[in-house]
Amino acid sequence: MAEALKVGIGGLGTVGTSVIRILREKANSLACHCGRPIKIVAVSARDKDRNRGIDLSDVKWFDSPVEMAASDEIDVFVELIGGELDIVYTAVKKALEVGHHVVTANKALLARYGVEFAISAEKKGVFLNFEAAVAGGIPVIKAMRESLSGNHISRIYGILNGTCNYILTRMLTEGLSFKDCLIDAQRRGYAEADPTFDIGGNDTAHKLALLTSLAFGTTISLDDVYVEGISNISQIDIRAADELGYRIKLLGVALKTDSGIEQRVHPTMVPTSSMIAQIHGVTNALSIQSDLLGELLFSGPGAGGAATASAVIGDLADIAKARPGFQYAPVLGSPALGLTPHKKARISHHAGGYFIRLNVHDRAGVFAAVARHMADNDISLESIVQRPFVESQIVKTIILITHETTEVNVQQALAAIEKDGHLVAKSQFIRIEPIA
Amino acid sequence: MAEALKVGIGGLGTVGTSVIRILREKANSLACHCGRPIKIVAVSARDKDRNRGIDLSDVKWFDSPVEMAASDEIDVFVELIGGELDIVYTAVKKALEVGHHVVTANKALLARYGVEFAISAEKKGVFLNFEAAVAGGIPVIKAMRESLSGNHISRIYGILNGTCNYILTRMLTEGLSFKDCLIDAQRRGYAEADPTFDIGGNDTAHKLALLTSLAFGTTISLDDVYVEGISNISQIDIRAADELGYRIKLLGVALKTDSGIEQRVHPTMVPTSSMIAQIHGVTNALSIQSDLLGELLFSGPGAGGAATASAVIGDLADIAKARPGFQYAPVLGSPALGLTPHKKARISHHAGGYFIRLNVHDRAGVFAAVARHMADNDISLESIVQRPFVESQIVKTIILITHETTEVNVQQALAAIEKDGHLVAKSQFIRIEPIA
Repeated sequence: MAEALKVGIGGLGTVGTSVIRILREKANSLACHCGRPIKIVAVSARDKDRNRGIDLSDVKWFDSPVEMAASDEIDVFVELIGGELDIVYTAVKKALEVGHHVVTANKALLARYGVEFAISAEKKGVFLNFEAAVAGGIPVIKAMRESLSGNHISRIYGILNGTCNYILTRMLTEGLSFKDCLIDAQRRGYAEADPTFDIGGNDTAHKLALLTSLAFGTTISLDDVYVEGISNISQIDIRAADELGYRIKLLGVALKTDSGIEQRVHPTMVPTSSMIAQIHGVTNALSIQSDLLGELLFSGPGAGGAATASAVIGDLADIAKARPGFQYAPVLGSPALGLTPHKKARISHHAGGYFIRLNVHDRAGVFAAVARHMADNDISLESIVQRPFVESQIVKTIILITHETTEVNVQQALAAIEKDGHLVAKSQFIRIEPIA
Repeated sequence: MAEALKVGIGGLGTVGTSVIRILREKANSLACHCGRPIKIVAVSARDKDRNRGIDLSDVKWFDSPVEMAASDEIDVFVELIGGELDIVYTAVKKALEVGHHVVTANKALLARYGVEFAISAEKKGVFLNFEAAVAGGIPVIKAMRESLSGNHISRIYGILNGTCNYILTRMLTEGLSFKDCLIDAQRRGYAEADPTFDIGGNDTAHKLALLTSLAFGTTISLDDVYVEGISNISQIDIRAADELGYRIKLLGVALKTDSGIEQRVHPTMVPTSSMIAQIHGVTNALSIQSDLLGELLFSGPGAGGAATASAVIGDLADIAKARPGFQYAPVLGSPALGLTPHKKARISHHAGGYFIRLNVHDRAGVFAAVARHMADNDISLESIVQRPFVESQIVKTIILITHETTEVNVQQALAAIEKDGHLVAKSQFIRIEPIA
């Protein structure tokens, strides 16, 4: 059997310790599968003395991940430190420079520096694997990078953040407010103490930016992602959506349009009968639409120590199976030097159906005014629902579902309605994603 | 750029011609992705003169696929002839013997000779890729063979035959009989003129046998698969299942039990709310349950020229990216020489819930007799439904849903009921798969 693949792990949180534990427990079957053992030889973390429930006596400790990344005692630097801290950037850069393979779960780092790193990895002929960075244990990166080589992808959409999907699921099933669901998610450990990154949609945006590059052969462009979080989704929206045959999901969507590539993260109405609507709780899912396949859908665990470790170990196994220097593996599907910036499609040009909720004063002429402003902006309506969603004599809620229109039209119509003084509260609109 | 990967295609049916067309159309992007061109240099099919709508003037024609497989003009033999004909077996064997890579969509061939071929491929250090053999364009083979390396799989289940799923979907949505749906499927080209292989469950069994080997590291054992087709599923079953919150799907299931590995293909009751129940028409799906991931689910197109070609091209791209002789790639996830036969769990020992339908004479004492035979065989009942599914004064239909019991108990109970003379027609039972 060939020599062991020597691994250095940076970061010993839940994922790092899971990876070490599983690599040890399954050492034999993995060695058999890969044709050589995968051996943890070094680790680096902040606090050497902390008890992590794993024996680190036979591995070398590095106080500095950068030093470990550069060390000739390792073949692979596994970066599980997180964040796009200077030190993480420096460590990965260093590892690639000296010709080490890199495995990382760090979407924030890759969303900023992925192309730079990919160029560096490809120049050195080493792997930069990042299955764990998107959708946790679901092997979407490998599928897009390798299995779909012959396909032209037209659209991807997915539920890429378990925290948001958990909150939206609970809002639907329990009738709780966004705030109560968030507190519950925090109590269960599904949401961070500071949940902004998740519920604001930024976590999804980082993942989407990576998938967009893989899907369309473009450079990673996080700044082009339009981002809207879920904090303004109310029970009324959830209930009205349900009545109209929709579920509200925080989707990341990337698609080719005539005016460029749209990358958007926002609460989205999806038909209740669609597969993506059946993705409950912390589960993630990704749909890929392409010329040869129509639609592929993957679902599974998007986070957690074991699921993320599964992805990291799959990445390590690929490296162990390849003989260094003899594998041509473009990190982002296409050679990094050939990736081209994409033309960004502006959200104002987004074309689609819209769910619009208006809380208006219950007085004569309001509905006529609303209808007129819609017509003035070329918006035709598919459904109109007026229900006493709020128990009030003086306020009523109007829900409109539009046919395909553009975002700019919707915003102009809503501005005009607001100007009339009929609105009791800010209007709400949610984009409808066409899903078969 | 490195030298082209030279491909010989055996079989020029829908899939073969699609592969050629797509490899030509996307030659540039594939060459960019793989670091070298993929070039069709030879083909072999039965009739040289048939017009297939593709230009074959620049490729070498072989009358014999065996001769092409052995030719030193190719690097890869792509076997799309189908069947487990002597000639196909000989051609693949020959290709591997001379050190060519092989890509095949032939599940029947692999279900019989997969381990023999895998041993041969691994000895020569060449690829034997077969993504297209199972679930068409869904990359389940790669996921199981590579991405899930760190996982211990406990169960897989899936919809692996589009014809059967199309028929069962139409029976549900249109209320048509099995026979009418089959005729419709044939008319649309979703079912063969001789549909036995599909509707009898054999096609699913072949695919399941391959997946079982990948899941559990065992030798492929087609003869151990218990197979039951869908031809005895009636409208009454479909409607009764619907009322009780179930859908009927032809599933292939493989799982580890205390008494060995169960491999079964049969009509299965799955909860209407489950993801697998939402797989409609010709779509395929596979669920994989493992220790690290809980459940992964993949769905997508299971057949058709383009989807199958997508899988073949993904397989070719993997070969193009690897530099021959320097990739260690166990064909079935674990080295083929180390695969062990599994202990077969007998279907009579299968434990689970059952849906039982009895058409009985409408006379006093029948229900009491049925209930007694169930109790005598230790079968406890979860639901009992008696509805006039058949319009008759003298016949009634009793539907029972059992709690977990064993197959042998169910069969004994049904034999006893039959012996009493209460049955008007043969009893029906359908296994319920526990799915969250």
